[in-house]
Amino acid sequence: MVFKKVTLVGTSPDGFDAATDDAIDRAQDTLENVQWIEVDELGVEVATADDREYQAEVTVAFELQD
Amino acid sequence: MVFKKVTLVGTSPDGFDAATDDAIDRAQDTLENVQWIEVDELGVEVATADDREYQAEVTVAFELQD
Amino acid sequence: MVFKKVTLVGTSPDGFDAATDDAIDRAQDTLENVQWIEVDELGVEVATADDREYQAEVTVAFELQD
Amino acid sequence: MVFKKVTLVGTSPDGFDAATDDAIDRAQDTLENVQWIEVDELGVEVATADDREYQAEVTVAFELQD
Amino acid sequence: MVFKKVTLVGTSPDGFDAATDDAIDRAQDTLENVQWIEVDELGVEVATADDREYQAEVTVAFELQD
Amino acid sequence: MVFKKVTLVGTSPDGFDAATDDAIDRAQDTLENVQWIEVDELGVEVATADDREYQAEVTVAFELQD
Amino acid sequence: MVFKKVTLVGTSPDGFDAATDDAIDRAQDTLENVQWIEVDELGVEVATADDREYQAEVTVAFELQD
Amino acid sequence: MVFKKVTLVGTSPDGFDAATDDAIDRAQDTLENVQWIEVDELGVEVATADDREYQAEVTVAFELQD
Amino acid sequence: MVFKKVTLVGTSPDGFDAATDDAIDRAQDTLENVQWIEVDELGVEVATADDREYQAEVTVAFELQD
Amino acid sequence: MVFKKVTLVGTSPDGFDAATDDAIDRAQDTLENVQWIEVDELGVEVATADDREYQAEVTVAFELQD
Amino acid sequence: MVFKKVTLVGTSPDGFDAATDDAIDRAQDTLENVQWIEVDELGVEVATADDREYQAEVTVAFELQD
Amino acid sequence: MVFKKVTLVGTSPDGFDAATDDAIDRAQDTLENVQWIEVDELGVEVATADDREYQAEVTVAFELQD
Repeated sequence: MVFKKVTLVGTSPDGFDAATDDAIDRAQDTLENVQWIEVDELGVEVATADDREYQAEVTVAFELQD
Repeated sequence: MVFKKVTLVGTSPDGFDAATDDAIDRAQDTLENVQWIEVDELGVEVATADDREYQAEVTVAFELQD
Repeated sequence: MVFKKVTLVGTSPDGFDAATDDAIDRAQDTLENVQWIEVDELGVEVATADDREYQAEVTVAFELQD
Repeated sequence: MVFKKVTLVGTSPDGFDAATDDAIDRAQDTLENVQWIEVDELGVEVATADDREYQAEVTVAFELQD
Repeated sequence: MVFKKVTLVGTSPDGFDAATDDAIDRAQDTLENVQWIEVDELGVEVATADDREYQAEVTVAFELQD
Repeated sequence: MVFKKVTLVGTSPDGFDAATDDAIDRAQDTLENVQWIEVDELGVEVATADDREYQAEVTVAFELQD
Repeated sequence: MVFKKVTLVGTSPDGFDAATDDAIDRAQDTLENVQWIEVDELGVEVATADDREYQAEVTVAFELQD
Repeated sequence: MVFKKVTLVGTSPDGFDAATDDAIDRAQDTLENVQWIEVDELGVEVATADDREYQAEVTVAFELQD
Repeated sequence: MVFKKVTLVGTSPDGFDAATDDAIDRAQDTLENVQWIEVDELGVEVATADDREYQAEVTVAFELQD
Repeated sequence: MVFKKVTLVGTSPDGFDAATDDAIDRAQDTLENVQWIEVDELGVEVATADDREYQAEVTVAFELQD
Repeated sequence: MVFKKVTLVGTSPDGFDAATDDAIDRAQDTLENVQWIEVDELGVEVATADDREYQAEVTVAFELQD
Repeated sequence: MVFKKVTLVGTSPDGFDAATDDAIDRAQDTLENVQWIEVDELGVEVATADDREYQAEVTVAFELQD
């Protein structure tokens, strides 16, 4: 059994939980067997967003198929 | 005055605030004089949970009695 | 173009999103051209607060005027 | 010449060397020109494994083709 | 559900796998519901050991009972 | 032979050596076979102390009895 | 909006700027919407290169298409 | 003698040396007695710049006047 | 309630406690509501000092006025 | 009593224990009073080795003679 | 001008300042042109010392002769 | 095959590439079989230099002879 890890940054105007969910949603749309995620960094983009854009960088672990 | 630190991982289906509260609740149930907590790591368990389970690893500092 | 970074700790009884917003609000009250913020640390003060006080230490980046 | 790095977690009931080999075997099955690997983290899964499952998270560097 | 983490250093003359097992054995003797362990540091004591003593510092996570 | 590690924060108005000793004194009052300590963090509390309170967070390693 | 991050190591006989550019060039050849890169590590390969080969390990962030 | 440290991010289209100089130039325009700087992070902005914008986050140490 | 953090390096020929106090003294001369400090780094300057100059880099947290 | 630390990278086709021993053997051939070693990094060289070459970077502490 | 860095661990029954001085004294006995030192780690040996033995691991920078 | 690592700080008025080369030049003058170097830290000395002195702290790995 081998897992692979990829790094995504989710975004949301609603806060850090929603930004994290945004990244997990994307991972589950394109990857099978997502197992767990780790939060690497949290931040907020202010200058180029309409309002505050919460960002969550997460590492997603999923099981590789044989 | 001496403080001791212990490490707990709280969990919740509702997000990182609730997962952190889960760990603090447990600490306050069993320890007196809880002073402050530090968040060490945030993550989400996906594979073995019914839905997404938010996790907060926290270090709890409490004052030791003489 | 040069950015400067300053470190603030925002606080709130309502959770980590609100504590982060507290720090950003303060930054935007006194600094122009706030660009983005990075979350350095999350914690909860228990002993000296009426209730749990969520804290978010953030680094705020803003663009210096010529 | 450009290298790319990917992160895998190998597993084995036999120990950390075998868990590392498990990840390298997988990398060499699907990637050409694997150059070197770095061990990021070692751990042991106990609860969901029949017995102790040794885990090695490794970063695999391979050379990209032109 | 709340997990607690404790830090142990296992030792063995036979290598790092055995030193890690030594710590897990001890954890399982005294703690119920051990879930997973993380290896924090590896080292070898030379001066005060008969021969080389391999050491593995591990963090053990176990589920607290309600 | 297995060691366990616990984290204490010693305090003193007299400086960092005394704050470290405060934590070691406490460890030796309640634990047998204390082997060595590592200093994790140094700080000074100003606001809630009469005067400056030096603080030393230390990790204490002690040998577990069979 | 979700970003993905990948890690590349660019190389050049001309210095660290050129090694970084080498990695960005490669990223832009194969990925759309490259946003920013972070330098993780700098190094120089001496033994297996004709002359000194400057290396820049960079993390490339790009926006995923819906 | 007390030094203070501030964090600046210099930018340049010409590379990391020039981005570092950009931050030092700014520091010397507004601060007396700049002593030394430390490079914290290097990066390249691609999406919002005309071309690649090299960035150097530096910590600037300067001596405070009595 | 928002705290701000600034970084100072105190110096003294007398040792690390005195170097730390040197930085706190300076902070209290120019800032109101100093709350706590964290020691970031300790060092000793030898070459450009008459004798050994102990240095303590500290981060000072103080409460901002509304 | 003063200790000195040096950094070695041991190698072996047989695994991480043997790579660590390779470095300790070398240290003991040329240094007296080797006290303990700390493992800094583990890796595997694939491209330039006949087969997989396990590598262990270790820091060796030894006591200096008066 | 090139500097070299070496790592020493000084020891003293009298505290961390004295342990640091012990390492600097040794460095100055055997090396010319010692410039500055950085404190890497502080600790206390309890088990194998008559009393508490304070330890300071320091990195010593000195200028190499042409 | 055993490698040893030593830490040097190269300097140059011309930038970080030249400062890195300065350290590698010195290493190759006095050590055989230099294999690779890793950049640990970059900085600029301002106060005690005629002009800005770029500094590169590098770790040099070289193969030990049998």
